[in-house]
Amino acid sequence: MTAQELFEQIKKKRSFLCVGLDTELTKIPEHLLTKDDPMFEFNRKIIEATHDLAIAYKLNLAFYEVHGAAGWNSLVKTVKYLKTHHPDVLVIADAKRGDIANTARMYAKAYFHSLGCDAVTVSPYLGQDSVVPYLQYDGKWTILLAITSNESFGDFQLVHNKQTGNLLFEDVVLKSMHWGSDANMMFVVGATHPEYFAAVRKHAPHHFLLVPGVGEQGGSLQKVAENGMNDRCGLIVNSSRGIIYADITGNFTSEARKRALKLQQEMEVLLKQNGLV
Amino acid sequence: MTAQELFEQIKKKRSFLCVGLDTELTKIPEHLLTKDDPMFEFNRKIIEATHDLAIAYKLNLAFYEVHGAAGWNSLVKTVKYLKTHHPDVLVIADAKRGDIANTARMYAKAYFHSLGCDAVTVSPYLGQDSVVPYLQYDGKWTILLAITSNESFGDFQLVHNKQTGNLLFEDVVLKSMHWGSDANMMFVVGATHPEYFAAVRKHAPHHFLLVPGVGEQGGSLQKVAENGMNDRCGLIVNSSRGIIYADITGNFTSEARKRALKLQQEMEVLLKQNGLV
Repeated sequence: MTAQELFEQIKKKRSFLCVGLDTELTKIPEHLLTKDDPMFEFNRKIIEATHDLAIAYKLNLAFYEVHGAAGWNSLVKTVKYLKTHHPDVLVIADAKRGDIANTARMYAKAYFHSLGCDAVTVSPYLGQDSVVPYLQYDGKWTILLAITSNESFGDFQLVHNKQTGNLLFEDVVLKSMHWGSDANMMFVVGATHPEYFAAVRKHAPHHFLLVPGVGEQGGSLQKVAENGMNDRCGLIVNSSRGIIYADITGNFTSEARKRALKLQQEMEVLLKQNGLV
Repeated sequence: MTAQELFEQIKKKRSFLCVGLDTELTKIPEHLLTKDDPMFEFNRKIIEATHDLAIAYKLNLAFYEVHGAAGWNSLVKTVKYLKTHHPDVLVIADAKRGDIANTARMYAKAYFHSLGCDAVTVSPYLGQDSVVPYLQYDGKWTILLAITSNESFGDFQLVHNKQTGNLLFEDVVLKSMHWGSDANMMFVVGATHPEYFAAVRKHAPHHFLLVPGVGEQGGSLQKVAENGMNDRCGLIVNSSRGIIYADITGNFTSEARKRALKLQQEMEVLLKQNGLV
């Protein structure tokens, strides 16, 4: 999927929402637990309730790996379902992998080729040769962690580099400019830390940013747009728990849709304010 | 498994070898491909050929994930086989995960509880709250990346912190001292960069270090021991490709054993030189 196709989808749906499928068996409606594959059933219903409001779905692999092979089957079925029924949406494997080149090639193959996702999140700690293998896949996206949405993000991401004068996350953005381009790389910038969007945008004005942390984690959509929006939106804002666990009864799909719709409507206002729709 | 149990095993086997099961279908002997589960069959035979020479086995998850649910089944079977037939060895999930606390809890459950591994490798980029969930499991080990064995390790790991005066990997070691102890944490230090062992040992004199990069990647066992060994050895040195792909014919088990034996014998000399056996 190209950046232009992503932007076209944003304009058409008037949304830059990503729905995070952090699916947990202990949190989904009880009546689904009798199904053959409750995680897939839950995902399918959430997707059907939200696909006209969302431009992307993000599958956090931890929630599937915890169930072993059965979890992987749910993951595979969910990706296949999205690719078959909603081929316009971006499917993100939220893996945050980071390993030596030989291993990175395997992970890239696992998520892009075997699983068929469009994008994968990658951790930068091992440097260039741990990231480049993901960039070899045409039409796929590597989403590098810059600023994460968790509380202790600053332990290392805000280390002040004596040589460059930058904070570590800025060096991640700057160095990686030479590894890929705004046509195959994005950056993770947490909504919980809007004060760092300006620094990322200074170095990466044209890249898309994947923004977790709105909703349950407390980030503000308004601030994210103020600090991070560019001339083709350039934002994919994720909400997971805030949407998918809005309700845990038989009404869960309509409640999830209500939450997604609320975010989409706020996004439409912000897109209009920026003259993008 | 406690550090003392690990040391007892090192003394008994006169070895601090970890065998890395980076199993690839394109590299294993052809006659195994007709088996029901070729990856597990290969792993089982490598384990049987080396278990008296190795104190640990490391399973790099990328090589299993690339085969989806079938790969996870091979992984599960391999861990179960090790735990059943060789309960003395340390089983490491080489995952290099690093995610927000809510997700880290899922990964910890996946590798420690569901899969039953003794240790997991974790990336530090997200800071304290991304690591602490792994440390909640009694008798389990969190192995934090400090210096990795790849070429571009220095892109960020060697960033010079203006505030502390340390290199980034030193800050990783220093900060994490307050998160866990030498009873539940280890650090990854690549054999390819022996010059940084002294800095790690200065801050973490008593911790075990997991050392990749000997063999195929070019690191020297001699230099690792000189710079990294402490009074209970404190080293777990991994070799993957150099052992498991020593031969790809019907003789692969005896060739793998030869390579493992060569390393064990070198290790025995080093342990003797340091008065540990």
